[in-house]
Amino acid sequence: MRSGLIALLTDFGYRDPYVGVMKGVIKSINPAAEIVDLTHGVTRHSIVEAAVVLLVSAKYFPHGTIFVVVVDPGVGSERRALVVETNNYILLGPDNGCLSLLAARDGVKRAFDISNTRFKLRDTSHTFHGRDVFAPVAAWISLGVPLEEVGVEVPAGSLRMLDIEAPRVGGDHSVEGSVIYIDVYGNIMTNIGPAEITEAGFLQGDKLKVVGPTGVTGTCVFTTSFSLVAPGELACYMNSWGYLEVAVNMGDAARMLGVAQGSRIMFAKAGHEVRSGI
Amino acid sequence: MRSGLIALLTDFGYRDPYVGVMKGVIKSINPAAEIVDLTHGVTRHSIVEAAVVLLVSAKYFPHGTIFVVVVDPGVGSERRALVVETNNYILLGPDNGCLSLLAARDGVKRAFDISNTRFKLRDTSHTFHGRDVFAPVAAWISLGVPLEEVGVEVPAGSLRMLDIEAPRVGGDHSVEGSVIYIDVYGNIMTNIGPAEITEAGFLQGDKLKVVGPTGVTGTCVFTTSFSLVAPGELACYMNSWGYLEVAVNMGDAARMLGVAQGSRIMFAKAGHEVRSGI
Amino acid sequence: MRSGLIALLTDFGYRDPYVGVMKGVIKSINPAAEIVDLTHGVTRHSIVEAAVVLLVSAKYFPHGTIFVVVVDPGVGSERRALVVETNNYILLGPDNGCLSLLAARDGVKRAFDISNTRFKLRDTSHTFHGRDVFAPVAAWISLGVPLEEVGVEVPAGSLRMLDIEAPRVGGDHSVEGSVIYIDVYGNIMTNIGPAEITEAGFLQGDKLKVVGPTGVTGTCVFTTSFSLVAPGELACYMNSWGYLEVAVNMGDAARMLGVAQGSRIMFAKAGHEVRSGI
Repeated sequence: MRSGLIALLTDFGYRDPYVGVMKGVIKSINPAAEIVDLTHGVTRHSIVEAAVVLLVSAKYFPHGTIFVVVVDPGVGSERRALVVETNNYILLGPDNGCLSLLAARDGVKRAFDISNTRFKLRDTSHTFHGRDVFAPVAAWISLGVPLEEVGVEVPAGSLRMLDIEAPRVGGDHSVEGSVIYIDVYGNIMTNIGPAEITEAGFLQGDKLKVVGPTGVTGTCVFTTSFSLVAPGELACYMNSWGYLEVAVNMGDAARMLGVAQGSRIMFAKAGHEVRSGI
Repeated sequence: MRSGLIALLTDFGYRDPYVGVMKGVIKSINPAAEIVDLTHGVTRHSIVEAAVVLLVSAKYFPHGTIFVVVVDPGVGSERRALVVETNNYILLGPDNGCLSLLAARDGVKRAFDISNTRFKLRDTSHTFHGRDVFAPVAAWISLGVPLEEVGVEVPAGSLRMLDIEAPRVGGDHSVEGSVIYIDVYGNIMTNIGPAEITEAGFLQGDKLKVVGPTGVTGTCVFTTSFSLVAPGELACYMNSWGYLEVAVNMGDAARMLGVAQGSRIMFAKAGHEVRSGI
Repeated sequence: MRSGLIALLTDFGYRDPYVGVMKGVIKSINPAAEIVDLTHGVTRHSIVEAAVVLLVSAKYFPHGTIFVVVVDPGVGSERRALVVETNNYILLGPDNGCLSLLAARDGVKRAFDISNTRFKLRDTSHTFHGRDVFAPVAAWISLGVPLEEVGVEVPAGSLRMLDIEAPRVGGDHSVEGSVIYIDVYGNIMTNIGPAEITEAGFLQGDKLKVVGPTGVTGTCVFTTSFSLVAPGELACYMNSWGYLEVAVNMGDAARMLGVAQGSRIMFAKAGHEVRSGI
């Protein structure tokens, strides 16, 4: 099921040579490997952000793509380095939750704690496992090394999960969810999906009240794109990943609503009482 | 004439996974496609900047390169999604002018409004046509799908053009032009080319007055490189793309002269009266 | 010994199309060339930073990789454009020191001043030799053009070197070195290696005084990773490139210690007198 494609997702940014060196390591082991940058702009140390990016992006990649996720604030301390085979992909990364959302959705076939030093670089550093562990192991796997050779199998249920509060639909045409990603434009992505929207009874064209975590309130129309409201106005819509998103046309919704990643946010049909409790 | 090379040009930046996902889509359809990032640092929503970048960059790419331009503030509203075959390249992007400068210079052989859903992703979103329309159609084209199969042919003359004021040479050894690009260093690129320079009679070594849109005036030597003047001083020269550019050695000319993209800027031989009227 | 892999290292950043166009030039000459970005985030005009990045990164790339380094504040003035064959790699870049650290460590077999216009682009500009000289020459070399055809051989000893002060070990369990790189997190990399550490008698777990160039003093434990100290605390350790590095867990050590690239910095065992003289 391997595609030979290796996709990299890190919080290394674009200033330092960290990502470039990982590619050098991969090409040294498998000169034919093809490497795609998913992004290296994950907020530093934001495991949730990496997990969400992986969750929403993976399905657009070929079956069998090897994803290497290095958002690893615990590097050098005790934490497992994992290879996870889901029903669709092969995931490598630290066992800190960054693989967990995709693993949970796709279903885990097998998981391994990388322990075989043969597939790591010699002289593994304590601070750069992206280069010394994950890149070389991914390259060897892309060459066909069986997963059971790179480490010790661990129970699928032992993967560290993330604690993201689920959406909750109120009885009064309201729904409350968690902010799981804020993009560079300040667009707010929630974990509210089509099922909750249906249950809350939101219809295209509805005017919704939106309440941020500090009580800031706005009004947004439930539509299909931020480009359909006037500049400066709020819109909400099912975004391109399938989740409810709030944006300001030509503006920054996260700043307007005082929202950060992890915040709770509530939507309610205008005319219906907005529940307190956020 | 297809090279199999797909070049991407967007305003998506480097923080979010948007570009990475477009690459995943392309590789899912054509695993052999080669992808080059032209840049993803276009100023958000700046159609002119994207059009200028495409205009000056394209000739350095192989004949037949497929350029995918996604600077698309109108996504989700009514605007055509185009495939344009020029005499040298294949261009994909929204019909908002971002393809127009290159199309006009290279000459349009055929243009199509992308309509065949067969080559789009299923469940096309309203907000991410880079992923759902342009990336997959580019990938199919790179596999050899004839352009007439992806959409309905439209007249070459129907492409939306940009309204950039042409340079104007004065009778008194002066020339006035439009600022079409400001790079990360604050270097100011105008649309003044060699013909206008010759007509204005500027010669290597001339001292020129330069007047910005707010009346800020500077003196610059007409030379071949900003590195030939002292740090902090203005220089102007025909830049590497063939246009008159103003820069400050080790400084920011755009800030110094109060210039933004779209500003008019005037150059005049020192000793000659600077015309008013800017 | 050529790998067909071309690695790019520049200070062009990610906003402008400069890097993308270099790739277009390479692919126009050698469609089969593989290109890896080492980084384009080198601090503008920082020759030392480019030289250090190349020094520490190269060994992770395949033998024979062609490195193109374009940090070139002197472009357009008199400076040689070099191709350097070391015992492991082929390096291209301006003769301003950016190639010198790696060349000195790997050993120079041959060096050439690029002069043959046949392998440059026609109409070479004065301001963009990355596109007009280094990219095309690298592409031709990747196709097998012998180095002696691209230019005139020059003595290995004629390469411009950098003036970085060597580390100095004191008699009182102290060592002083130069700051050669500061990463995006503010982690401070020195040129102090394992030999100096041994000579100074530093042992794992030692508490060290660290003194910055302005006299700011801190205490750090000599350990293996910044993740082993509490947030906000200083740690020093042999970093993943083999040099002594100082970092603050979840903080910015360069700011805390008032350090810039090129600063001198001193470490001394606590309890031992810290020498003055910095």
